[in-house]
Amino acid sequence: MTVLPPRPPRHSLTEMTELVLPPHANALGTVFGGQVMAWVDICAAIAAHRHCGRVAVTAAVDEVVFLAPIHVGEIVRLEGRVNAVFGTSLEVEVLAQVENPATMDRTPCVAALLTFVAVGEEGKPVKAPVLLCESEDERRRSAEAHKRRQDRLARRRLKNG
Amino acid sequence: MTVLPPRPPRHSLTEMTELVLPPHANALGTVFGGQVMAWVDICAAIAAHRHCGRVAVTAAVDEVVFLAPIHVGEIVRLEGRVNAVFGTSLEVEVLAQVENPATMDRTPCVAALLTFVAVGEEGKPVKAPVLLCESEDERRRSAEAHKRRQDRLARRRLKNG
Amino acid sequence: MTVLPPRPPRHSLTEMTELVLPPHANALGTVFGGQVMAWVDICAAIAAHRHCGRVAVTAAVDEVVFLAPIHVGEIVRLEGRVNAVFGTSLEVEVLAQVENPATMDRTPCVAALLTFVAVGEEGKPVKAPVLLCESEDERRRSAEAHKRRQDRLARRRLKNG
Amino acid sequence: MTVLPPRPPRHSLTEMTELVLPPHANALGTVFGGQVMAWVDICAAIAAHRHCGRVAVTAAVDEVVFLAPIHVGEIVRLEGRVNAVFGTSLEVEVLAQVENPATMDRTPCVAALLTFVAVGEEGKPVKAPVLLCESEDERRRSAEAHKRRQDRLARRRLKNG
Amino acid sequence: MTVLPPRPPRHSLTEMTELVLPPHANALGTVFGGQVMAWVDICAAIAAHRHCGRVAVTAAVDEVVFLAPIHVGEIVRLEGRVNAVFGTSLEVEVLAQVENPATMDRTPCVAALLTFVAVGEEGKPVKAPVLLCESEDERRRSAEAHKRRQDRLARRRLKNG
Amino acid sequence: MTVLPPRPPRHSLTEMTELVLPPHANALGTVFGGQVMAWVDICAAIAAHRHCGRVAVTAAVDEVVFLAPIHVGEIVRLEGRVNAVFGTSLEVEVLAQVENPATMDRTPCVAALLTFVAVGEEGKPVKAPVLLCESEDERRRSAEAHKRRQDRLARRRLKNG
Repeated sequence: MTVLPPRPPRHSLTEMTELVLPPHANALGTVFGGQVMAWVDICAAIAAHRHCGRVAVTAAVDEVVFLAPIHVGEIVRLEGRVNAVFGTSLEVEVLAQVENPATMDRTPCVAALLTFVAVGEEGKPVKAPVLLCESEDERRRSAEAHKRRQDRLARRRLKNG
Repeated sequence: MTVLPPRPPRHSLTEMTELVLPPHANALGTVFGGQVMAWVDICAAIAAHRHCGRVAVTAAVDEVVFLAPIHVGEIVRLEGRVNAVFGTSLEVEVLAQVENPATMDRTPCVAALLTFVAVGEEGKPVKAPVLLCESEDERRRSAEAHKRRQDRLARRRLKNG
Repeated sequence: MTVLPPRPPRHSLTEMTELVLPPHANALGTVFGGQVMAWVDICAAIAAHRHCGRVAVTAAVDEVVFLAPIHVGEIVRLEGRVNAVFGTSLEVEVLAQVENPATMDRTPCVAALLTFVAVGEEGKPVKAPVLLCESEDERRRSAEAHKRRQDRLARRRLKNG
Repeated sequence: MTVLPPRPPRHSLTEMTELVLPPHANALGTVFGGQVMAWVDICAAIAAHRHCGRVAVTAAVDEVVFLAPIHVGEIVRLEGRVNAVFGTSLEVEVLAQVENPATMDRTPCVAALLTFVAVGEEGKPVKAPVLLCESEDERRRSAEAHKRRQDRLARRRLKNG
Repeated sequence: MTVLPPRPPRHSLTEMTELVLPPHANALGTVFGGQVMAWVDICAAIAAHRHCGRVAVTAAVDEVVFLAPIHVGEIVRLEGRVNAVFGTSLEVEVLAQVENPATMDRTPCVAALLTFVAVGEEGKPVKAPVLLCESEDERRRSAEAHKRRQDRLARRRLKNG
Repeated sequence: MTVLPPRPPRHSLTEMTELVLPPHANALGTVFGGQVMAWVDICAAIAAHRHCGRVAVTAAVDEVVFLAPIHVGEIVRLEGRVNAVFGTSLEVEVLAQVENPATMDRTPCVAALLTFVAVGEEGKPVKAPVLLCESEDERRRSAEAHKRRQDRLARRRLKNG
């Protein structure tokens, strides 16, 4: 199986838009955390899928921060992008904004970082295409993602002895 | 209640992306019509909502054509845009493409036209903002939408006597 | 594969009843368009399925008109019937009524026309059984459906040049 | 609040039709018990609702027997009817059949008996309209339902001492 | 295929906890009967599955009594246990309690008895492991379940013959 | 509003059991990440809710690690426990295991840490009850949770300043 050629982040940039309906909300009228995480996971999975040109599965959710509540009747816009590739795995960032329909003002409501793994026909990890950073911002994102990964690995080594 | 100022179509352009999961499909492994229509309606509702700066409800589905089947595991990208405004109602067009994750080739799979009505606090129709066509393409789309509307009204008059 | 013998519309007449629950509704407490379209599609698919004696898939939604809002707690009754057969495709009409539980008064709330295609084992279109019109009303419905189909084909030829 | 006049069983006879889709099924490809019970409850609730002219809630499921498995792609037809009224409560019977789309043969797949209670504005039980049995079959059904109810009450007295 | 050795009820005791969200409720804000039955069926299916060491399917719902309404925002705790084994079938009891989050008081809200059948590879019934009653309470439950089964069989013979 | 007295972790220990059905899975037959996250969030929300005696909302997902895939037909057991309380917020840990129905062997499949915030009537944060650690293990968990929180705050200060 041939690995695909290097690809820039814009190749896999993913935009999702959701209209918040009553079944998405808890008893307070705000979207419950599990629903937001399901949207975030789908958005990240599509970006990972597009970068890898094949199925990619969630290996870890490294961080999800809820910045503002989301209400029934509002519009949520999610943007997913690949920050870095580490062999068979990749870091995907998802930012969500809630939109005021009258003014079109957008307020950040969720920021998330997830790790996906590209999988082959037999469900085994396979190499993901190299990420081709084209701008200063993309190089910084990739460096920060590598730093976060080293910190995670160090924390895990410390924990396991 | 003040009516919002005229707005160009790009103000309300809506992009939705969906990953096709097994619950979306029928026994043949292809997305069933009702699921596609639910996605199309949400995409059009968000575009109408953004144009009107308020809730807009589906008044009619004028046409949905299914151009190609959509399979589990594929990515669907929907784009909604306001074609024309007729007082309190507006025509929204939704085009959906199915994406081959390996090659990123996109194939049109659904083309739809819907009519929405802007509604106020008491659920009554209210004026929608005027549509500010900026390009030749936008003017052509608006003219065609007005033509379709006249044909529909004529057919209905004919039918009702 | 043998084609089934001609069948009258009553053979495939389909009645569906739904109780409107909170997850079906939008933030206004009325059923959102996409949910109604999903019910309409299922009702039409069952009627097409019964006429063809095999799976039939949605090829187009030719018209859905929303005549009255549907509220949480109400009962919706849908009736699907085959209007006409055109070789491998067929027109199905769905009428929905919303029922006042206290008085049992029924108010038409949705009128829809859809085109389905009968599909064989390999997912290819196959001949649908001939429609055996038995009454004046059935013959009128079939003639009107043929007329609508010719108008649609003519509009498409015009559009594509 | 006035009680509605007596009503025959045909007033509230309810027909529901469902197309079995993959999300309805378990890992064996057959509809899982909980989904069938959800359909049965909705069908019975609509019949109770129609008889009472108001909301009626499930008080007990007296029996559900699964007679044949239901597969993805099949059509299920449910019929709900009021068997008897006991003051504020009523017995509703639901029979479901699975339909072979090619031959239209129908096989009974579920038989169920449920007890509903009519509830008023404050969620308290209120009198249900008297059931007007018009045929021998309806009188027999009502008598059997009264007998079942007496047996249940006797069993409960025995159990509670 | 070897039958598994006898197993005590505690081997398959199943605890489920659910947070009641708006989509679970009807228009009155209380969980609708069909949703409760779906939870009860899943809880009983897991207990049956654990006892049999293989898939078990719902053969009958022998009784579900609704003792108290369940509201949005409350916590529901379900407990499933195998009462008795009859060759290829088994009786499972499910008790549900609704929990007041402030006081942690638990109120019984649903009591249910279901019959499951263990099924083999070809979907045919197979022997379930013998139930090893270890306490007086377990022996009493098993005896009562056998008595209920004989009563049901007697009622059915009476009805059919 | 009075704050509740200190409570040990066992007061809010939460056990959830899920049967994996086809709608929970992606095209590979394994549960998709978003569904797992929805279960994890519900389990953690119930534990937080029980500790606080009131609604608690997800403020952050600090880590979710997927240790093994979960397949359709398997049983998943989740356990949620409060690790530490920090004024108005609290750390909840969720561990999920997938169960082999034949052998009852349990394999860890998901490990997660989440932060919840107790909210009052007006949706504002309110003090959560103090956590009463009773064992060495509980004291170690609380100390580790405080350490993780300080690291997170330090990382955030570094990033923002």
